[in-house]
Amino acid sequence: MVTKLKVFSGSSHPELAQRICDHLDVPLSKSEVVRFQNENLMVKIQENVRDCDVFVVQTSSPPVNEGIIELLIMIDALRSASAARITAVIPYFPYCRSDKKDKPRISIAARLMADLLQTAGANRVLTMDLHSPQIQGFFRVPVDNLEAAPIICDYYRERDLSDFILVAADAGEAKELGRYANRLHLPIAIIDKRRYGDDDQAHAQHLIGTVRGKHALIVDDEIATGGTLLEAAAFLHKEGALSVGATATHPVLCGHALERIANSGLNEVVVCDSIAVSERLNTPQLRERIKVLSVSHLFAKAIRRIHDGDSISSLFR
Amino acid sequence: MVTKLKVFSGSSHPELAQRICDHLDVPLSKSEVVRFQNENLMVKIQENVRDCDVFVVQTSSPPVNEGIIELLIMIDALRSASAARITAVIPYFPYCRSDKKDKPRISIAARLMADLLQTAGANRVLTMDLHSPQIQGFFRVPVDNLEAAPIICDYYRERDLSDFILVAADAGEAKELGRYANRLHLPIAIIDKRRYGDDDQAHAQHLIGTVRGKHALIVDDEIATGGTLLEAAAFLHKEGALSVGATATHPVLCGHALERIANSGLNEVVVCDSIAVSERLNTPQLRERIKVLSVSHLFAKAIRRIHDGDSISSLFR
Amino acid sequence: MVTKLKVFSGSSHPELAQRICDHLDVPLSKSEVVRFQNENLMVKIQENVRDCDVFVVQTSSPPVNEGIIELLIMIDALRSASAARITAVIPYFPYCRSDKKDKPRISIAARLMADLLQTAGANRVLTMDLHSPQIQGFFRVPVDNLEAAPIICDYYRERDLSDFILVAADAGEAKELGRYANRLHLPIAIIDKRRYGDDDQAHAQHLIGTVRGKHALIVDDEIATGGTLLEAAAFLHKEGALSVGATATHPVLCGHALERIANSGLNEVVVCDSIAVSERLNTPQLRERIKVLSVSHLFAKAIRRIHDGDSISSLFR
Amino acid sequence: MVTKLKVFSGSSHPELAQRICDHLDVPLSKSEVVRFQNENLMVKIQENVRDCDVFVVQTSSPPVNEGIIELLIMIDALRSASAARITAVIPYFPYCRSDKKDKPRISIAARLMADLLQTAGANRVLTMDLHSPQIQGFFRVPVDNLEAAPIICDYYRERDLSDFILVAADAGEAKELGRYANRLHLPIAIIDKRRYGDDDQAHAQHLIGTVRGKHALIVDDEIATGGTLLEAAAFLHKEGALSVGATATHPVLCGHALERIANSGLNEVVVCDSIAVSERLNTPQLRERIKVLSVSHLFAKAIRRIHDGDSISSLFR
Amino acid sequence: MVTKLKVFSGSSHPELAQRICDHLDVPLSKSEVVRFQNENLMVKIQENVRDCDVFVVQTSSPPVNEGIIELLIMIDALRSASAARITAVIPYFPYCRSDKKDKPRISIAARLMADLLQTAGANRVLTMDLHSPQIQGFFRVPVDNLEAAPIICDYYRERDLSDFILVAADAGEAKELGRYANRLHLPIAIIDKRRYGDDDQAHAQHLIGTVRGKHALIVDDEIATGGTLLEAAAFLHKEGALSVGATATHPVLCGHALERIANSGLNEVVVCDSIAVSERLNTPQLRERIKVLSVSHLFAKAIRRIHDGDSISSLFR
Amino acid sequence: MVTKLKVFSGSSHPELAQRICDHLDVPLSKSEVVRFQNENLMVKIQENVRDCDVFVVQTSSPPVNEGIIELLIMIDALRSASAARITAVIPYFPYCRSDKKDKPRISIAARLMADLLQTAGANRVLTMDLHSPQIQGFFRVPVDNLEAAPIICDYYRERDLSDFILVAADAGEAKELGRYANRLHLPIAIIDKRRYGDDDQAHAQHLIGTVRGKHALIVDDEIATGGTLLEAAAFLHKEGALSVGATATHPVLCGHALERIANSGLNEVVVCDSIAVSERLNTPQLRERIKVLSVSHLFAKAIRRIHDGDSISSLFR
Repeated sequence: MVTKLKVFSGSSHPELAQRICDHLDVPLSKSEVVRFQNENLMVKIQENVRDCDVFVVQTSSPPVNEGIIELLIMIDALRSASAARITAVIPYFPYCRSDKKDKPRISIAARLMADLLQTAGANRVLTMDLHSPQIQGFFRVPVDNLEAAPIICDYYRERDLSDFILVAADAGEAKELGRYANRLHLPIAIIDKRRYGDDDQAHAQHLIGTVRGKHALIVDDEIATGGTLLEAAAFLHKEGALSVGATATHPVLCGHALERIANSGLNEVVVCDSIAVSERLNTPQLRERIKVLSVSHLFAKAIRRIHDGDSISSLFR
Repeated sequence: MVTKLKVFSGSSHPELAQRICDHLDVPLSKSEVVRFQNENLMVKIQENVRDCDVFVVQTSSPPVNEGIIELLIMIDALRSASAARITAVIPYFPYCRSDKKDKPRISIAARLMADLLQTAGANRVLTMDLHSPQIQGFFRVPVDNLEAAPIICDYYRERDLSDFILVAADAGEAKELGRYANRLHLPIAIIDKRRYGDDDQAHAQHLIGTVRGKHALIVDDEIATGGTLLEAAAFLHKEGALSVGATATHPVLCGHALERIANSGLNEVVVCDSIAVSERLNTPQLRERIKVLSVSHLFAKAIRRIHDGDSISSLFR
Repeated sequence: MVTKLKVFSGSSHPELAQRICDHLDVPLSKSEVVRFQNENLMVKIQENVRDCDVFVVQTSSPPVNEGIIELLIMIDALRSASAARITAVIPYFPYCRSDKKDKPRISIAARLMADLLQTAGANRVLTMDLHSPQIQGFFRVPVDNLEAAPIICDYYRERDLSDFILVAADAGEAKELGRYANRLHLPIAIIDKRRYGDDDQAHAQHLIGTVRGKHALIVDDEIATGGTLLEAAAFLHKEGALSVGATATHPVLCGHALERIANSGLNEVVVCDSIAVSERLNTPQLRERIKVLSVSHLFAKAIRRIHDGDSISSLFR
Repeated sequence: MVTKLKVFSGSSHPELAQRICDHLDVPLSKSEVVRFQNENLMVKIQENVRDCDVFVVQTSSPPVNEGIIELLIMIDALRSASAARITAVIPYFPYCRSDKKDKPRISIAARLMADLLQTAGANRVLTMDLHSPQIQGFFRVPVDNLEAAPIICDYYRERDLSDFILVAADAGEAKELGRYANRLHLPIAIIDKRRYGDDDQAHAQHLIGTVRGKHALIVDDEIATGGTLLEAAAFLHKEGALSVGATATHPVLCGHALERIANSGLNEVVVCDSIAVSERLNTPQLRERIKVLSVSHLFAKAIRRIHDGDSISSLFR
Repeated sequence: MVTKLKVFSGSSHPELAQRICDHLDVPLSKSEVVRFQNENLMVKIQENVRDCDVFVVQTSSPPVNEGIIELLIMIDALRSASAARITAVIPYFPYCRSDKKDKPRISIAARLMADLLQTAGANRVLTMDLHSPQIQGFFRVPVDNLEAAPIICDYYRERDLSDFILVAADAGEAKELGRYANRLHLPIAIIDKRRYGDDDQAHAQHLIGTVRGKHALIVDDEIATGGTLLEAAAFLHKEGALSVGATATHPVLCGHALERIANSGLNEVVVCDSIAVSERLNTPQLRERIKVLSVSHLFAKAIRRIHDGDSISSLFR
Repeated sequence: MVTKLKVFSGSSHPELAQRICDHLDVPLSKSEVVRFQNENLMVKIQENVRDCDVFVVQTSSPPVNEGIIELLIMIDALRSASAARITAVIPYFPYCRSDKKDKPRISIAARLMADLLQTAGANRVLTMDLHSPQIQGFFRVPVDNLEAAPIICDYYRERDLSDFILVAADAGEAKELGRYANRLHLPIAIIDKRRYGDDDQAHAQHLIGTVRGKHALIVDDEIATGGTLLEAAAFLHKEGALSVGATATHPVLCGHALERIANSGLNEVVVCDSIAVSERLNTPQLRERIKVLSVSHLFAKAIRRIHDGDSISSLFR
């Protein structure tokens, strides 16, 4: 392609966008989001983008819904400004847990998000560790779904993993476990939860497999409120685990998650910078407990390859 | 139509939805908006809507962008729950001032909103006093654009309007004035603003026409921060107006608008309940100064006619 | 709805269509599929369908691809014959295992199928036990995804289930297990498979949990070649299971599946008639070993409710 | 872009297309419009356009509706001949005054035109002074809306403008006035028209502001029959204007417009060549009274920038 | 269907619309086409059409292109006025001879017309004797293509047809002949035309079959300029035909067609009223020579059946 | 275009794809079609195609319907792998005889095929001798429809054609004849078939024109079962033809076609390799009787020109 590559950033994670640009060795393109007193947003694209190959970096983090509207307006502005191609770079995809109709008369909101992005004018999407891989099928436009597992496993490989075991905190998440187990050659265990009676909250946990005398490492795609994680950790300790750590790609860390983790018996929690979290680690304790790995070089490589028409899948070989 | 009429309400203005239902003599249908700690919304439609003629009432008010996403999710849920027809009832349309491209590389966000609503599944739209009537052309689906002018003029007609004059606070809004002038048989004046030099803020005002010895009534489609309104009021007083009042359909009233109005020399400000405002009128002074007229019966009539296949235009004759 | 309900059948499973019609107490509508010597298909709809509410029953079974084209042509013929609404009733959805991009440069064919159906003119889809619930999000038109679990669990509840344990033959299928475990109040175990080295075939199995001294019941959504199933059964016997049975909604049973099952140490295999299988059970041994439960009354109820505008979700309460 | 730029002309204004090509220094590409005796049109594109960046110049002028169909057929022919990109260059946009629904059950025909152009295959639109800027929002494809005001104001700036005042012949057109007032630093006045009783024709005029002792310059976006213009001119003379002139971008000049203007007391009427008018100025009197400014160089610059991927907005700084 | 049937007429053939309404025993619904002096059309739908089943009768006749735009605007107005279903009733379809790409870089304009009608909002089309039956495939919406052959053959059956022979004036039209030959049990002959050298005009005719001593009846789908027809008639006389007559569904009769026919040696020319022709038969000679059969009752029956959801194909049995 | 040209082949005719690649002097790109035991197909594109100009060669031949699904999956895989442009190269278009609605309530399946291809992601189509040229209008994307007539006529021109006559086996196919007659300067005759009574099979044949003492050459676009051809040949012999040969572009040759031709009194049958036939000519008799001309160089030239943006129509001059 002879067109020019330009990277823009939404408001959600400018540091990541800047890091990606640094890896790409291109300046971050200029835009401005004006938020009027009536809460309406206006996005001004402050550079010519005609016939350019444009990437817009916007992850999903609070304010979540405002971030979505901002991204849609940004894409619409780029489209009507005649960008040649617009790739929405969404490290953590919004509403990704809303990917099925497990209650009557609800929206599969992840599909809706896909539709809205395409309506606004997104020609491609670049994302990471979608909650379920089927979400890729919600789009008509090409989607590249990067994996953080190689980066996270590289981090763990530098350690002594003898007597480690991987644990899924829920039977439904067991598949995620496979990707790590295959790379780290570790055994796995699964926590089986059951609900009783009419009360949604009352449930029991059973461990399928055993963690006794092992270092348990809970694997998930995201940590939200930390509720499931800490409940699992306590349960694993009770089941005889020597220590309990955790890893997840996306540090959603909403509600009292950070506080809970700080006060928990967790060993170490490894996450990625797909969502801005570093500045929230404002105590030595948190900084010690939570390790953030950057995925910016991976996104930069993917953007470069998309722009150059090179294969993305070969990135993973 | 033999299908059943159902009215749902979003979170933005349940009182208005309830008032509309009261006029229609139907119960407000049940739905629940769950806001998870990760700020994701889940809308549960709690009644069967298969083959129903569904109306969803959601106006645009803070949190504006969250309100839009909520409405889109709600429509998507109703669509996939097999509603026969979904009418988005949006008394104050979001991003309606963003209806043209008056700066380079911005989005015509009102058109984007129209596209998003249709993508989510809206089959019709019912709204009121769109900032410009051309916005109706942003939609492919039928739009009914109600007018508050008859209701507001009925209110003023009960008063002595001798020596009154209608004033547009900006030449661009002069057209709006015409609808009131024709109904109330009043003369008009227009404030002409000019910008000087490079500074966007520096400008001068000239009055086209005269208000000396008259009661000035400033007419607009909405009051947002109140800045333009109060500047105009001060200017009209300086130009010799006996008193200055104001009317606008939509009480956006963002920023310090209420406080400003309370402390202003304005006579009376007449608005409609297209946006929830009553509970914010929490001082006797505000309740005296700001008069809220209900448009709920007009919306109810329009919904009834849409459902029954009767003419809406005949409502205005 | 005042329109008339009509049910048509494709070539794949006319017995099921007839059973559904019997439950609905409507005659099966007349159509004819002509297969010319050049292998082109012509579908003649032999009844007027103008303004009718039409359901077309076509499951996915060999010849799979011909069955898809036949269904598309049938829907297109109904659409251009002015049917008011066309519901594709697809008990076993084609290409449902192709629901993600787990290899580079492949099609998410289940999404493609969804697009093709909508292009041909399907207004709704009624299906059962989609391989992953996210597939519902591949459609823009409403999809009702029925569950066979209640029917299958009813069958098992008539038996003595003490000392039974449910087993997933693959960690990725553990979620499916949950639906049965919750209904039957049984414990679960999961077989964890790993691949070694470069050879796709070489792998090891570990049992997470224990089956020793228990009657194992392998649960899956479909049985295709039976390879995974029989390998799991052998493994469970080796791990000390008292007996091994299996259940799955969809009896794909391709390749040597029937022969394999006949010659296996499996106790009983319970499947549904979402795919025609009865006439293939042509030995007493097979008829004894494989139990077929009919889902026709469930489809009939769903069709009735769709036609009448009644809730489907309430079917499952 | 490495593709080739080609400019084609419809039948409406070949002189303008040729002038644009002269400025661009490219030959006008060859096409032929055949009008059969049955009034069907056939457009033959007489050059290869595969992968070319094609611009089609067709303004809206009598025969208006035939001109629209010709343009649609031309675009369709170019599309199916594999043009890489088709920009409809429409100096005066058809049906631009039909931009809102100010009567019950009428079409917003300007939106319909936008839809038809996109259906035929237009990938972009380049136009000038749309009657309302919102019309840009009627399109999904990018639209560049050029302004004639800089060209017209340059013309007036060469004159002595002391004692000049700009006048809008209708309050609804007051906004247009602003663009001229800001550039020429002139005061403004507005004619306020009112309708009385049931008769659509009976109305009164009031002048908001004063023109006494001034040279009035009536500003509008187009002159159609000239009725409004001449009525305003007479009124301004009566109100004491020293002289009355007029300017408008688009010389629609239908009905008896030219004759009326020739016989009027108007000083000078300045228009652009967005519509062919020169050859209709067939008397010395008309040629003296009506001044035509060319916008061809502006269109040429815009086409060059669109082709080269350069900014259009920077044209206006 | 419980909705109301309404029939509107465009400007092209109000007599036919009225005749259809008479057969249907419904009043012609009120609408008005305003043609402004700038040639812009405004269609006012003067009755409420919400949820109605609307039919718009507009054939293709001069002014052809204006008639198309009028129809598109009318459909758009009905759509935005919330008609439940809009059927474009187009007895003679515009641009129907432009149904293939027989020259490089031309538009298949009949397909474009189909797209434009659907874009404007047509939900169905009812037409007659499309030049080629494949045109039906140009539409996504259902199309009913009525045949005039039964009406025309009924007319001829009342005569003595001994020694009659049907003739196609061009080998390409031989298929049309079949429909008549099968109904009237008559032999056929075909005129084979060849072009020579570079000159498009120079060609020779050969008769395949023989007409000597027979009454020749030339059959075609339309008569346009009459050129082909009269050349064929002269040739058939030369080949020994006792007499030459002609029949065609659509009396386009453009250019000097009427004059030519009046002065020709043709026996009788039988056409239908799919295009208004009666008032053009303004001499006794023409009225004697040209026989017009009405298809209004056939259109009325079809409209009734479409509205009632009855089969159209059964009309032809 | 600066992108890279790549040619892929489906399973239907790899020899033709290879021949095309040889003419183009590019390697055939690598892909693999996996057919699972459940008859589901998986297409693996084994080369990077990002931003490439991709051509997929797949003709329609048994298994016809599986071939269509394979092509759709292949296009979908290429699309989601980010190919810049996908041209479906379909020498013999599937369901091309199903191009009109000549029975009630059938699908115009050729249009459906066009829609399915576009839904899957085809950006262009390159095909040959569509059964009717109107099928080109079934597509919205550009279609190039190559002609085999020049290649076939070149073959015949090398022979002595004195006393030859071209014959259409059906009046409906007479137009096809014209293209050959004009090139070979031969006379024509047409077989006129009639159906009698209620029996679809009972019919009579008449010859329009004469073949006595001539060598008859039957021309058609395809030979399917050979039934029509052999019946015509027998009839022509009876009518006094000296010999009877035949030519057709597409050798569908289904059912007992080959056997029938081998045993017939036909002179020579000339076809093209738009469908794989050579390996089926497995007797000396068949190889002598059936002559296959290659169209691969014509497809190669067309692909080269499409890729280079050169004119295709100039190929035929």
